[in-house]
Amino acid sequence: MGWNKVAVIGVGMIPFGELFDKSWEEMIEEAFLNCIKSVDKGFNPKEIQAAWVGVARPHLHGQGAQGGVSLVGNIGLAGIPCTRVENGCPTGSDAFRNACFGVASGVYDVVLVGGYEKMRDAPTSEMLGIGLEGHPLLTLSETAMTMFAPQATRHMFEYGTTKEHMAMVAVKNRKNGVLDPYAQFRQEITLEDVMRSPVVCEPLNLLDCCPQTDGAACALLCKAEIVDKYSKKPVYVAGVGCGTDYYYAHEKTTFTSFPATVRSAKEAYRLAGIGPQDIGIAEVHDCFTITELIDYEDLGFCEKGQAKELIEKGVTERTGRLPVNVSGGLLCKGHPLGATGIAQIAELYWHLREEAGERQVEIRKGYGLQHNVGGRSISNSVVTILTRNKD
Amino acid sequence: MGWNKVAVIGVGMIPFGELFDKSWEEMIEEAFLNCIKSVDKGFNPKEIQAAWVGVARPHLHGQGAQGGVSLVGNIGLAGIPCTRVENGCPTGSDAFRNACFGVASGVYDVVLVGGYEKMRDAPTSEMLGIGLEGHPLLTLSETAMTMFAPQATRHMFEYGTTKEHMAMVAVKNRKNGVLDPYAQFRQEITLEDVMRSPVVCEPLNLLDCCPQTDGAACALLCKAEIVDKYSKKPVYVAGVGCGTDYYYAHEKTTFTSFPATVRSAKEAYRLAGIGPQDIGIAEVHDCFTITELIDYEDLGFCEKGQAKELIEKGVTERTGRLPVNVSGGLLCKGHPLGATGIAQIAELYWHLREEAGERQVEIRKGYGLQHNVGGRSISNSVVTILTRNKD
Repeated sequence: MGWNKVAVIGVGMIPFGELFDKSWEEMIEEAFLNCIKSVDKGFNPKEIQAAWVGVARPHLHGQGAQGGVSLVGNIGLAGIPCTRVENGCPTGSDAFRNACFGVASGVYDVVLVGGYEKMRDAPTSEMLGIGLEGHPLLTLSETAMTMFAPQATRHMFEYGTTKEHMAMVAVKNRKNGVLDPYAQFRQEITLEDVMRSPVVCEPLNLLDCCPQTDGAACALLCKAEIVDKYSKKPVYVAGVGCGTDYYYAHEKTTFTSFPATVRSAKEAYRLAGIGPQDIGIAEVHDCFTITELIDYEDLGFCEKGQAKELIEKGVTERTGRLPVNVSGGLLCKGHPLGATGIAQIAELYWHLREEAGERQVEIRKGYGLQHNVGGRSISNSVVTILTRNKD
Repeated sequence: MGWNKVAVIGVGMIPFGELFDKSWEEMIEEAFLNCIKSVDKGFNPKEIQAAWVGVARPHLHGQGAQGGVSLVGNIGLAGIPCTRVENGCPTGSDAFRNACFGVASGVYDVVLVGGYEKMRDAPTSEMLGIGLEGHPLLTLSETAMTMFAPQATRHMFEYGTTKEHMAMVAVKNRKNGVLDPYAQFRQEITLEDVMRSPVVCEPLNLLDCCPQTDGAACALLCKAEIVDKYSKKPVYVAGVGCGTDYYYAHEKTTFTSFPATVRSAKEAYRLAGIGPQDIGIAEVHDCFTITELIDYEDLGFCEKGQAKELIEKGVTERTGRLPVNVSGGLLCKGHPLGATGIAQIAELYWHLREEAGERQVEIRKGYGLQHNVGGRSISNSVVTILTRNKD
C-alpha cells in the first residue's frame, strides 16, 4: 500500500523568526548543513544529483527571477540541476512534490529540496502584494486577511462555529509552540488573550493570525530502493497531491471550504492508498485559526461543519487522538512561504522517527499528513503523506 | 535507445510580438486553444490531469506570486494541479522538463505545460531587474548585455571570432524568420545592416540582440504507452537535462563557454543515449548572436573555438547539414522567457512531423535539440531532446 517510490533521508531547518541579522544565503546554508548532518549514516553533498527550491517572492528582497541557482549556488553545489518552484503558500511543499517526481521518474537517485523566504526585509504591504499587483480583476483590498475573514464569517453562520472555537486553535498551537525550538512564538496564551486581542479583520483578531516570518528548511530524498544506504529508520513518501481553485474571488463556489485542499487531499490519499482515518499526525495550514478548522473538514478528519467538535473535545491536541500542528503550526512557527511546507515535512519526519524530543507524540497510525493552501483567492493546495510503513 | 517515457501530442503558440492589445490571460487562452486543436485524433481538455506553467517575472505585470493557477484558472481547468516553475531564461523549458517528470513518475498520464511572459507592459529596465534587485553582490550594471558582451570579447580574443561571424548569425536567423508566421521580426537583413547598427554594449550591436517580446506557448504530453490514442506521428522526449553555474559573476571560471549549457547537454545526451552527432535540427538560445556561436561549442556541434567555421560554411543554415534556429531564433521570434523554451519545442515538433510548411527542413537525423541558457550570471540551462524514433 502506498506510492513509496521516494524516501526522506534527512531534514534540516533553522529557528524561524525576524532574522534581520541573516541574509537569505545564510539562512539556506544553515538549513542545508543541518539537513546534511541529520542523515543517519553520514552523507556527502556531492551525492546530490539535482535540486528543487521553493521561494515565493524573492523579488521583494532584491533577488528577482534567478531560478534554482539561488539554492545550489549558495551551498557549494553550483553545477547540478535546480528548478525554482513558486506556488503561493504551498511553494515549499510543491517544490517537495516536484522533487519527488524527479526521483520517481527514474532520472535521479538522490535529490535535495530547499525552501526559504525573507519576509521581514520588505514592508508587509509589499509582501502581501499590495501596490505591486495592479490587476484590474483583483481589488486592492484582496489581502490574506480579507480572503480568509469571509470564510470565518460564513462558517460561523452555516455551522455555528464561534470566535471561541477559533481562539481554541490559537491556544492549542501556542501551547505546542512552547516545546518547539524552531518556533517564532514560544509563549502560552489563554482563550481570553485571543478574544481580547485587537481585531485585524472581523472576525479575525490579532492572535488568530500567523506572523510575517523569515526562515529556511531543507530535505534530502532518495529513491526507495537505496534508502538503507543512508537511513536507519526510513520514512517514505506515501503520496503527494496538488489541487487548484478559481483564480479570482468572484468565481468562488463556496466560502466554508477550500476546494483546492479537497482536491489535493483526494489525490494524495489515492496515491497513498489510504484515507483520513489512517492519519496519525498532521501539520496543516493554519495561517489563521479559521483555516485550521476548515482544514479538518476539507482533509476528511471530520464531517462538514464538525470541526468545532474536534477542537472542543481536544482530539487534535498534542495528546489527542489525532495531533495537529504539534510544531505550533504557522501560528507559532511563522509562515515563510518557501520554507513552510518543508518545515512541516521535517516535523512529521521527526515524529515518525520518534525523535521529536519533548514534543514527541504517540504515533497511533503510521501516516503523517502535511498540508498547505493559499495563493490568490486561496486557489492552490498541496498535501504530502509520509509513512514509516514500507509496504 | 532514448528515455522515451513521455510523448508530445500537441503544441500551440501565438505570434510573438509587442502585444499591447492582449492581456496575459488572452495570450494563454489562445496558445492553449491552438495546442488543443493540434492533436491529431482530437482532444478533450478534461483529459488533462495536471499542468506546469513557466513564467519568470509576473510581478512586473501585476500578478505577483500566484502559482500554477494563473494557467489552469484561465483555461477552464481550475481544479487540477498546476506548478509554477521559474528558472530565468530556461523558465519555459524547465516547466516542460518538470512536466516530463510528472508523467515519467507514473502519477499522471496526460499533462499540459504552458508558458507566457508579458515583457512590454513594464519598462525594459524593470524587466531586466535593474532597480528591483539591489543585492550587494550584484552590481547595478549587471544586465543581459553586460553579462554577454564580455563573452564575445573574450571569444574574439581567444579564438579569432569576429564581429562579422556574429553578424552572420543575425543574418541567418533573420532570413529564417521571414518564413515563420510566429516571429516578431520577419525582414531579411544584410551583414552591413548588422555591422552598422548602433552599438548597445561593445562588441554587441543592436542587431546582435533579441528584442523584448510578449508571447505564450503550450504543449501537451502523455505517457509513451498511450500515445497512439492521440497521435498519428508520435514525437517522444528522448532526454531532458538541466545544469547550473555560479550565481555571481565574480565566481565565473570561463568567459568563452557557458558551463551550465555543457552540463545540461551532457545530462540530456546521456538520458537520450545519443551524442551531438545524432542531432538533425536544433533550436538554441540566441539572445545575442555570440550566444548562438558559443552554444555550437557547448552543445558539442563543433570543437571549442570552431563555431566560426560552422557559421562561415553555412552548416547551420536552414538548408545546411545541421539547421539551427530555423524558427528565426530568439533574435527574430523574440524571447518571452516563460514561453521561449516551449515555443522552441513546438518548432522541433513541427519539423520532426514534417509539418513546418515553407520552412520545413530535411531531417537527416531523427533527433531535435532545444536549448536555453540564462538567468543571473548566465547560470541556468535546460536542454530537451525530441525524437521520432520510438526505440
